[in-house]
Amino acid sequence: MPARPRTLHFNLFLHDTGHHEASWRLPGADPTSNLSLAAHQHLARVAEDAKFDSIFLADSPVLWSDPGRRPSGKLEPTVLLAALAVSTSRIGLIGTASTSYNEPYNLARRFASLDHLSGGRAGWNIVTTAGEGAARNFGLDDQPLHRARYERADEFLDVATKLWDSWSDDAVVADKASGVHALGSHVRPAGHEGEFFRVAGPLNVPRSPQGYPLLVQAGSSEDGKEFAARWAEAVFTAQPTLEESQAFYADLKRRAGAVGRDPDGVVVLPGIVPVIGETEAEARELDAQLDRLIAPQYALTTLARTLKVDPHRLSLDEPLPLDLPDEDEIEGAKSRRTLIVDWARRDRLTVRELIGKLGGGRGHRTFTGTAVQVADTIQHYFENGAADGFNIMPAVLPSGLEAFASQVVPILQERGLFRTEYEGTTLREHYGLARPRNRHDDGAGVPELGRVTAGVA
Amino acid sequence: MPARPRTLHFNLFLHDTGHHEASWRLPGADPTSNLSLAAHQHLARVAEDAKFDSIFLADSPVLWSDPGRRPSGKLEPTVLLAALAVSTSRIGLIGTASTSYNEPYNLARRFASLDHLSGGRAGWNIVTTAGEGAARNFGLDDQPLHRARYERADEFLDVATKLWDSWSDDAVVADKASGVHALGSHVRPAGHEGEFFRVAGPLNVPRSPQGYPLLVQAGSSEDGKEFAARWAEAVFTAQPTLEESQAFYADLKRRAGAVGRDPDGVVVLPGIVPVIGETEAEARELDAQLDRLIAPQYALTTLARTLKVDPHRLSLDEPLPLDLPDEDEIEGAKSRRTLIVDWARRDRLTVRELIGKLGGGRGHRTFTGTAVQVADTIQHYFENGAADGFNIMPAVLPSGLEAFASQVVPILQERGLFRTEYEGTTLREHYGLARPRNRHDDGAGVPELGRVTAGVA
Ligand SMILES: Cc1cc2nc3c(=O)[nH]c(=O)nc-3n(C[C@H](O)[C@H](O)[C@H](O)COP(=O)(O)O)c2cc1C
Ligand SMILES: Cc1cc2nc3c(=O)[nH]c(=O)nc-3n(C[C@H](O)[C@H](O)[C@H](O)COP(=O)(O)O)c2cc1C
Repeated sequence: MPARPRTLHFNLFLHDTGHHEASWRLPGADPTSNLSLAAHQHLARVAEDAKFDSIFLADSPVLWSDPGRRPSGKLEPTVLLAALAVSTSRIGLIGTASTSYNEPYNLARRFASLDHLSGGRAGWNIVTTAGEGAARNFGLDDQPLHRARYERADEFLDVATKLWDSWSDDAVVADKASGVHALGSHVRPAGHEGEFFRVAGPLNVPRSPQGYPLLVQAGSSEDGKEFAARWAEAVFTAQPTLEESQAFYADLKRRAGAVGRDPDGVVVLPGIVPVIGETEAEARELDAQLDRLIAPQYALTTLARTLKVDPHRLSLDEPLPLDLPDEDEIEGAKSRRTLIVDWARRDRLTVRELIGKLGGGRGHRTFTGTAVQVADTIQHYFENGAADGFNIMPAVLPSGLEAFASQVVPILQERGLFRTEYEGTTLREHYGLARPRNRHDDGAGVPELGRVTAGVA
Repeated sequence: MPARPRTLHFNLFLHDTGHHEASWRLPGADPTSNLSLAAHQHLARVAEDAKFDSIFLADSPVLWSDPGRRPSGKLEPTVLLAALAVSTSRIGLIGTASTSYNEPYNLARRFASLDHLSGGRAGWNIVTTAGEGAARNFGLDDQPLHRARYERADEFLDVATKLWDSWSDDAVVADKASGVHALGSHVRPAGHEGEFFRVAGPLNVPRSPQGYPLLVQAGSSEDGKEFAARWAEAVFTAQPTLEESQAFYADLKRRAGAVGRDPDGVVVLPGIVPVIGETEAEARELDAQLDRLIAPQYALTTLARTLKVDPHRLSLDEPLPLDLPDEDEIEGAKSRRTLIVDWARRDRLTVRELIGKLGGGRGHRTFTGTAVQVADTIQHYFENGAADGFNIMPAVLPSGLEAFASQVVPILQERGLFRTEYEGTTLREHYGLARPRNRHDDGAGVPELGRVTAGVA
């Protein structure tokens, strides 16, 4: 078989009226779309019509922002994605859930259920959940230490994969004549006894179409990257420049190789905020219009919290203070803090300017320009070791998605860089990844994509 | 306004190929319907076309039966119901979830999300989950004591309702001009500090169409009935005879009154297994055919476990042994054990006969006969203080539901006992119940059904 040409992958990061924090204030915006099934259905369908690999919902079990600042209520991802599974037929459905504030049995089961319901389109963005806000909703005074959160995450994945493997792919025989529904010998306990969890199993859901959901990860600290190298099949990341994207890409592929995995088995998807205009000037004006709508009082408080400084020490028209706490002192989102500080210092931004940049893409790269310019930049990243695809984060929704789908996608399709039709049916097939093998099975009878199966009797 | 005539309520208890444990072995059965979205969609739509109040999914976070015995995999209810919310438009969606093996923040949020998604059709069947099997999936060696499970359930509801009330109904103003999305003063912490839980809040989902999901309960022990009297708006119960149904009905209404609630605010729904034939003889033959398909080896083990006796002490053609453990010694499902033993002794059943009866309705009343006979019995229960409606548990699905919907429902509609059209849009409206008031609001602007609102400015 001739080698398949390498092609792009697109994930749509859903975010009610858009990723720009002031997007809900635009005249055309539906400011309650965060709670609207119809609004989410529309976005999912536009992305599916444009042949995106997947849609994605971020999440945390806490009220994320000041409720005054922007739409802050969020429907729980596994529930919302189950509804969207019915409204779509091909696109992948990736939901975020925390390993720090869930029990493995319950969460493994919900994702297995979603994978069954959607015919193999479920993905799990695995996060450890920074911040004491979430901790305080679960009986704790403060978040567990960063290292401890990742240790728990590791064991959580160990338990979850044991549960997902507890039914062999061929366990259900449904033999009406003999009255045997599933083979008892093919349904096995998980028998997990660890530091954080003791879970007997088996799961009460048979193995799902994909075996288990696509494992996605988005933490960029040292611990986060090591975790990604061990477990993740797709990685979201915020990288403000091409060079930083290239460095991250190379680093993550190297780490995956170092733990014995095929580096091609980890898809790296930097976030981009495309802002598209008929002309570059028009795109820039849209950007500026949005930044003018940001109410700085909320953003200042958030920035101070991320940096662990007293908000009174930040003045809107001054640069960041020089004496900020180090990454090492921060137990929350370490990589995000470092990214923000480096960016402000490199570009000599005032606090107000920094807030503008963060309000737009929150540290992700903004691609502002015409459709051709955006397509060129995407291609340049893709062909220069910076990305396997992109996490598309429109500043304004649905219009930013519609513009990307109708103007940028056709250019990339024409260049042979993006699919014009779905070829597979599961989320892993869209990303060109192999179905995970069940640890108890010999693999015969379970075709694995992207691997040679010859030699298996 | 003239008093509305009292009318029946129907809930469909979904159970893949049917409530009879051998139903999956019938020639027409789809033995993998337990994992099929399409099969669930079909059942939900038939029930909705027949104007049922709701559909219901039972659940436990453990493999419930021997995987050989019958379809044992179960999709997680909140996820499955979210999908069914898209496939239906009026019928209520009730899912079971355990207070013993969930965190209040996560569960309150999933049900609030389902209520938003479905436009106010969510219900929660609150269970405390008997059995050490589930306990062993959550780090425990055995289940918590029965009393402790209900104490936790009480506090769980206290936390959940605080979270559901944390957003006032009018908190979201979405004022684009001023840039204020929700009023900070109308979003309040939960501030819960109790014996089992400490939860700061607020919830990250605004108050949902119904305020919160309909609260349903199904435990019939002393602690269970007290819990139901305090919290439940609808109660499922297994009562094998008319007299027992009447006694349960009167007892529960009395208990609700004793804690200061309006007894009409608790809807009592005994389970019935309708087996319908063209003639009574045909119905009885269907019953017998199903019982012959039961594989007794599995049922015997389950019965022994429920009764806490060694399976070797049970012989298929003998009555139950006389020296069985008392209800007091049982930490699991107390009421179920008592029901089974009383039934076996009263009707002088052998173990084989008892297994036949349990395999069919699992302790619920079977109504076997023609459509008119079934309708008559329903009416008799309804008009003689035994039920406000029924939890319909067809022995075989979808055929048993289709027969009930097409033959029994029209008779009851003709008699003016059941609706021919939905009048409201929410699940509580179907059951004629009032929308719960938010503890922080004065009630103005939040119309409450079934209560006089005159006098509120
Ligand atoms: C595109 C993207 C999406 C993310 N989504 C979430 C999310 O939904 N929930 C969450 O808690 N963290 C989310 N994060 C944050 C990371 O999971 C992680 O906590 C953060 O990058 C800090 O990294 P660290 O935990 O490795 O220090 C996201 C990060 C990125 C780049
Ligand atoms: C119709 C009906 C449905 C039930 N569904 C469930 C269920 O889904 N999950 C569960 O754990 N228990 C379920 N139960 C059992 C009860 O919640 C309860 O555990 C049992 O009746 C024992 O009562 P007790 O806990 O008050 O002793 C159900 C009971 C009935 C009557």
